[in-house]
Amino acid sequence: MSPAAASEHTGTMGLTFEAGATAATGGRRAALHLPHGTVQTPVFMPVGTAATVKTVQQETLEHLGANGAGAEIILANTYHLYLRPGHELVRRMGGVHRFMSWNRPMLTDSGGFQVFSLAKLRKITADGVEFRSHLDGSKHFFSPEHSMEVQIALGADILMAFDECVETPATWERTRDSMDLTHAWAARSRAYFEAHKHEVPWAQGVGNREQGTGKDSDSSSVPGSLPPVPCSPDPCSLTSVPCLFGIVQGGMYADLRRESAERLVEMDFDGYAIGGLAVGEPRDVTREMIARSLEILPRDKPRYVMGVGYPDEIEEYARMGVDMMDCVLPTRAARHGLLFRAPEPGEEIPAVDGAADPAEAETASRTAVRMNIKRVEYAEDQRPIDPGCGCPVCRRYTRAYLRHLFVAKEPLGATLNSIHNLSFYLDIMERVRRELAG
Amino acid sequence: MSPAAASEHTGTMGLTFEAGATAATGGRRAALHLPHGTVQTPVFMPVGTAATVKTVQQETLEHLGANGAGAEIILANTYHLYLRPGHELVRRMGGVHRFMSWNRPMLTDSGGFQVFSLAKLRKITADGVEFRSHLDGSKHFFSPEHSMEVQIALGADILMAFDECVETPATWERTRDSMDLTHAWAARSRAYFEAHKHEVPWAQGVGNREQGTGKDSDSSSVPGSLPPVPCSPDPCSLTSVPCLFGIVQGGMYADLRRESAERLVEMDFDGYAIGGLAVGEPRDVTREMIARSLEILPRDKPRYVMGVGYPDEIEEYARMGVDMMDCVLPTRAARHGLLFRAPEPGEEIPAVDGAADPAEAETASRTAVRMNIKRVEYAEDQRPIDPGCGCPVCRRYTRAYLRHLFVAKEPLGATLNSIHNLSFYLDIMERVRRELAG
Repeated sequence: MSPAAASEHTGTMGLTFEAGATAATGGRRAALHLPHGTVQTPVFMPVGTAATVKTVQQETLEHLGANGAGAEIILANTYHLYLRPGHELVRRMGGVHRFMSWNRPMLTDSGGFQVFSLAKLRKITADGVEFRSHLDGSKHFFSPEHSMEVQIALGADILMAFDECVETPATWERTRDSMDLTHAWAARSRAYFEAHKHEVPWAQGVGNREQGTGKDSDSSSVPGSLPPVPCSPDPCSLTSVPCLFGIVQGGMYADLRRESAERLVEMDFDGYAIGGLAVGEPRDVTREMIARSLEILPRDKPRYVMGVGYPDEIEEYARMGVDMMDCVLPTRAARHGLLFRAPEPGEEIPAVDGAADPAEAETASRTAVRMNIKRVEYAEDQRPIDPGCGCPVCRRYTRAYLRHLFVAKEPLGATLNSIHNLSFYLDIMERVRRELAG
Repeated sequence: MSPAAASEHTGTMGLTFEAGATAATGGRRAALHLPHGTVQTPVFMPVGTAATVKTVQQETLEHLGANGAGAEIILANTYHLYLRPGHELVRRMGGVHRFMSWNRPMLTDSGGFQVFSLAKLRKITADGVEFRSHLDGSKHFFSPEHSMEVQIALGADILMAFDECVETPATWERTRDSMDLTHAWAARSRAYFEAHKHEVPWAQGVGNREQGTGKDSDSSSVPGSLPPVPCSPDPCSLTSVPCLFGIVQGGMYADLRRESAERLVEMDFDGYAIGGLAVGEPRDVTREMIARSLEILPRDKPRYVMGVGYPDEIEEYARMGVDMMDCVLPTRAARHGLLFRAPEPGEEIPAVDGAADPAEAETASRTAVRMNIKRVEYAEDQRPIDPGCGCPVCRRYTRAYLRHLFVAKEPLGATLNSIHNLSFYLDIMERVRRELAG
């Protein structure tokens, strides 16, 4: 390990990043030290939209994967938690970690992507975005400052700058204007964050309230309140503060991606995300945009591609030098009966680039076979989803049973499918980390 | 323990019942030895309608309750499994135990109750019941013989005779005619059962197929098929056969209940259920019908009240001498956000008999307080559901988080609520068993 950034660590800093040697492909094995624990990278982060990874218990998340290490970091969505139960409630409950009883690292997005994709009647100005809730149509306004305020109240370990996600396709000019807005918002996000980062619910001082002294919170003073779950690994640095990542935009234009990365690096964030990808563009465009961005982004900071992807994608991008990825795919696919498994010896899988049908190409995978568990061919199949998988589902349940649960619309089906798919994703990253460590 | 019935145990018998001394109230502590393991009674049996206790993993069921012993026996519903995935498929998969990977005792109902309450266009004749599926309207026919055939294919440890459930209210004459039909069907059920009980998928001979020799089953011969989970406690007597319970009917008429019990005892079943109760009648009528039936039913056989009830009911009936009960209430209520907890010291709960409103009286409870987790009063409540409960949910999650999950319609809410309610029910029975043994 090259402790390139370790010297930057101070008592009030939220992140240190120890990157190892770089493989020929650009990939690197690293460790990301955050207030609530250490994350081994490259890492895939399960998405816990509303402070829950849908259908999966926290106990289960903590032990997922062949090595039993579980998910070391998960996401929560700022937009969803802002609307329900509300960020001020989460703050009063001690922050999102304590609220959901998850005391490993967490990341919150900025709300930007969801405002653009889920909310109604968006009105974008230089100041921010006015939108109506997808839940009840109520009117809201997100500015960079307000996104930061909400995220600080939630109190994840990693916060994201507020960005605009341009529609796709978009012209170069439209994309450049949107990128410029994102950069202006990034600067404002950073300024607000620096002024208020000590206000996360678990930071020093505020942390005393969380520990149940009840000084500032009526709820915590109620006898019998549950104490926070200890951080894992213990001890964690709860006297620290969160960290802030900037988001590279620039649509599908390589020159804009490079420019965006340069501008953000000048602002000096704790880490850098690459946003606005995997929104319908061909896979080789995604790859190209990631590659151009990575050329600019500093090697001593974590680099995060948002919202990807299929099993072969997360493996490929990790080998290119991406340290962090997140996606709803493993859990959402699971709820729709789509399962991933390793190919059997000699089994042919259509290559992504070689498939005849471009749509097929996007869904095919070199890393994983896709199974639609509702198919009748699985009705009496006594094998586990993936005979080589060590997850609790593959150790115990047959495809026949999982098909029955799915067809009968039994909730347990979504749970078991999710546990398997998440394990599969975590195991891919574990293998990539092992190979990068060489 | 008085081994009253132990001498009846033979190598091909499915049940022995060791009943201890009887308390003044009629309650007794006993052990029920079944092919897939031993059940400590009085016992509450979670309902696994479609071969899954809704939203709860089998691993979790195995460890529920303060003592960690888990559910020792669960139910599956014959009607549901017959329609989907089909009893012949379950038979080919090795029976319902292996199909769902549950290798503790199981009980299947006869399908009668569900045919009468769920299916459409029922036509009842002396021979059986013609009905249309609630799923697709397809036409089916259940006779006593067919119910037995289906149940033997499913292969639970305890099978139930096919009965008619009379509507309520019903006249004495209508109830007597229905009861007579139930008795005729009980005799036919017993005759078919005796002739075919060795055909359960796990019985000797057929058991060889289950063990993966592949001699009789294509599915099991596929390389990589999951082996059956070992029984717990090991060893279990898989060379044995299942047992058959008769069902006492007689509506809300004490004389008919007594007559029904007498007639069934003459037929000599392995155990006796009391059916057709908790269908809307006042609690004191339920109690009276149970008491009259218990007077007749032999003390050396297990006695089972079907489909009850609220926490205080299961405690009360257990103390009266009922050995087994089942109900969807803890899991169904959980999915609707209704949670049970012990009263706090000094907390007043409206007594069942003393409540001003009869409807209220039915829902009030002396054993448990009912919490509707969606109420706003829990929005910032950092306490667990029940501070005295040792279940995994009460050890980790706050009411505030559970309310959020429920309000946000997150599937994890139903899972955590179900785990708590089932634990609460199992803990009541554990306490009653301890007190009866004392």
